[in-house]
Amino acid sequence: MNIAIAQSGGPTCAINASLVGAFSEALKIPGIDAIFGSINGIEGIINDDLIDLKNFIRSNDDMELLKQTPSTVLGSCRYKLPDAVQDNTIYEQILHCFHKHDIKIFLYIGGNDSMDTVMKLSAYAEEKGEDVRIIGVPKTIDNDLCVTDHTPGFGSAAKYVATTVQEIVCDSSVYSVDSVTIIEIMGRHAGWLTASTCVIRANGVNAPHLIYLPEGNFSTDKFIEDVRRERAKHKALVIAVSEGIELDSGNYRSGAVDNFGHKYLSGIGKQLETLVRENFGCKVRSIELNVMQRCSSHICSKTDIDEAFMIGAAGVKAALTGESGKTMVFRRISDIPYIVNIVSVPASETANKEKFFPKEWITPDGTNVNEQALRYFLPLIQGENVLRMRNGMPEHFKIKEEVLK
Amino acid sequence: MNIAIAQSGGPTCAINASLVGAFSEALKIPGIDAIFGSINGIEGIINDDLIDLKNFIRSNDDMELLKQTPSTVLGSCRYKLPDAVQDNTIYEQILHCFHKHDIKIFLYIGGNDSMDTVMKLSAYAEEKGEDVRIIGVPKTIDNDLCVTDHTPGFGSAAKYVATTVQEIVCDSSVYSVDSVTIIEIMGRHAGWLTASTCVIRANGVNAPHLIYLPEGNFSTDKFIEDVRRERAKHKALVIAVSEGIELDSGNYRSGAVDNFGHKYLSGIGKQLETLVRENFGCKVRSIELNVMQRCSSHICSKTDIDEAFMIGAAGVKAALTGESGKTMVFRRISDIPYIVNIVSVPASETANKEKFFPKEWITPDGTNVNEQALRYFLPLIQGENVLRMRNGMPEHFKIKEEVLK
Repeated sequence: MNIAIAQSGGPTCAINASLVGAFSEALKIPGIDAIFGSINGIEGIINDDLIDLKNFIRSNDDMELLKQTPSTVLGSCRYKLPDAVQDNTIYEQILHCFHKHDIKIFLYIGGNDSMDTVMKLSAYAEEKGEDVRIIGVPKTIDNDLCVTDHTPGFGSAAKYVATTVQEIVCDSSVYSVDSVTIIEIMGRHAGWLTASTCVIRANGVNAPHLIYLPEGNFSTDKFIEDVRRERAKHKALVIAVSEGIELDSGNYRSGAVDNFGHKYLSGIGKQLETLVRENFGCKVRSIELNVMQRCSSHICSKTDIDEAFMIGAAGVKAALTGESGKTMVFRRISDIPYIVNIVSVPASETANKEKFFPKEWITPDGTNVNEQALRYFLPLIQGENVLRMRNGMPEHFKIKEEVLK
Repeated sequence: MNIAIAQSGGPTCAINASLVGAFSEALKIPGIDAIFGSINGIEGIINDDLIDLKNFIRSNDDMELLKQTPSTVLGSCRYKLPDAVQDNTIYEQILHCFHKHDIKIFLYIGGNDSMDTVMKLSAYAEEKGEDVRIIGVPKTIDNDLCVTDHTPGFGSAAKYVATTVQEIVCDSSVYSVDSVTIIEIMGRHAGWLTASTCVIRANGVNAPHLIYLPEGNFSTDKFIEDVRRERAKHKALVIAVSEGIELDSGNYRSGAVDNFGHKYLSGIGKQLETLVRENFGCKVRSIELNVMQRCSSHICSKTDIDEAFMIGAAGVKAALTGESGKTMVFRRISDIPYIVNIVSVPASETANKEKFFPKEWITPDGTNVNEQALRYFLPLIQGENVLRMRNGMPEHFKIKEEVLK
């Protein structure tokens, strides 16, 4: 029998580590012959666009290199399965591909939308009496997947963001004139990544002075008052804001949507920059950390990469014991020492749902987060991998461009 | 006798290494007693706002920590000396500070504007028969200082930019839909930092596909044609563009200027994004690398930091031999093996001038750079410092906030 692995959704620094974890686990199983990589997520299964991963990942060195390579080496997609009751054509195409290649295990590494695919596809396969196990392995820098303590990819994003915000704090405070620096951080509708900037406090850096999350009740008037109050205390004010914050007026969106109907979020940093300039006339700069948050593998978290590897491997093990329609999740046992277990839960518990930052971790005035948040975040950014460098830059694993059309 | 050191202009990852180089060289000289740090550049001298650096930098560990700390630890300024003939008040204030603290050597670490200060101040001091030596130590991520082969700070910025562009290339190519990614890079009117993205070719990454420098003749019509042509070849087109590029229409500037009369440059990335969207209707994203280019010390170039240290030390040595009104510069002896010398030249050769990227290193069609550029850039980004980490983040050297008002 064979196994197929696909990657979906937005890239992270850890999604390839999960692929390597699953690949290396599958390699160990005598009953598994081919290990297929599906090109561009589930689209590769639908279009019968598979590669034999053993032809590409040939050594431990290759695996190590792949683990330090950001983004999805197999390509990605934002494809949503239709309801099988209304149209099962795609489902049959997928099963056809599974039959053709004797695929009995399908591992889907992705976010909450990908877990929708795991849920629907496994239900359909079961209904048809198909002997294929379908397992979801989470990843997202947004950390907004339900049930799991956190998601692979988040720790590395948080480490990049913390490191960068710490550096921006240094940068912002050099001149004698007052200034405001606004840093816009990803996370869609969830404030996890923005809230994680609090970790720099552990190093004695008293910043960001204001943190705004979608889970708080943002109001433009209160923002202006917050800035006025904090400017009196800090010459170089630093503000972290989630991309998911909406101004009261709410008319600053581009309106563009992706295939899941999600709005492309952007622009809140610039909007607040304008607000500050108009209200205070001081030096103000907004910084969008942009895709660097999800691809800066040069400063990835070793904890995150190791966990991503393990949860990929655990997905294969779960499938081998007969599980299907499940999502692998982390369960945190303790903060200090940091201990997590990996368990499986029904994919339906994670599909199409978002987990939000706990309101009780937000300070009463809504402009910062508390010690519980700090305790939650700190273990996730620990440790550094020694990177393989080439010509002064990190080396990346590549699959030839001709393969990835 | 005593020495004073000040930092000026935009922050870099290497400017504190030059401070440490000068500090540790001065420590060795029996004739030098106090080593003063001037707060906020020349403003600290004018306002008699000095700190005794020996009270803050107490050990080799402190020096190592300071070397890995981005930005100007003493604060910075963008102060321009008036013409002494018209108004010598400030000059007399400066000399008064030098007298009061028995300062016989003043080291000014900064860019081409700071070299203007070195030139004017040393000329005034000499005219007045003052026994004070004034030496400029260069720094700028823009690499636009004349005479010197390159500037401290540039190599680290280039290493960050190269590493990040390599990662963005991974990130941009994951989906099956065509896309254009535009990366806006600093450098003011000079294209050095943008051109340096060519180094990723050394790692087999065929990108950026288009590189636009201020030194080229940018035309909107040609840009559209370039994008049309390259889109046919590359599914995920990646474009690097200098902040200093001006659209033909030229009406997109904010008009704001700094104290030197320089326009704040920003926005070309967003402008080109709009152009691409309007002309091709494809997925397009612009990314501004922003201040991360000058403060991402976590991925600094060891070569750059070591050289910054050495040129700071060389500045003190030059002053001790009686030189004044000079700028310390690098002279490149060879690319492979990479060898540079440090020499001094009259500050007037570097003051208020800009060095531009050589036109002969731009490809004939104006959309890329050639092998000579690659050979020039590669040595500057080599080597990594082992960072001291704390709580999963790089540790930074700090001077108490009360000191830095």
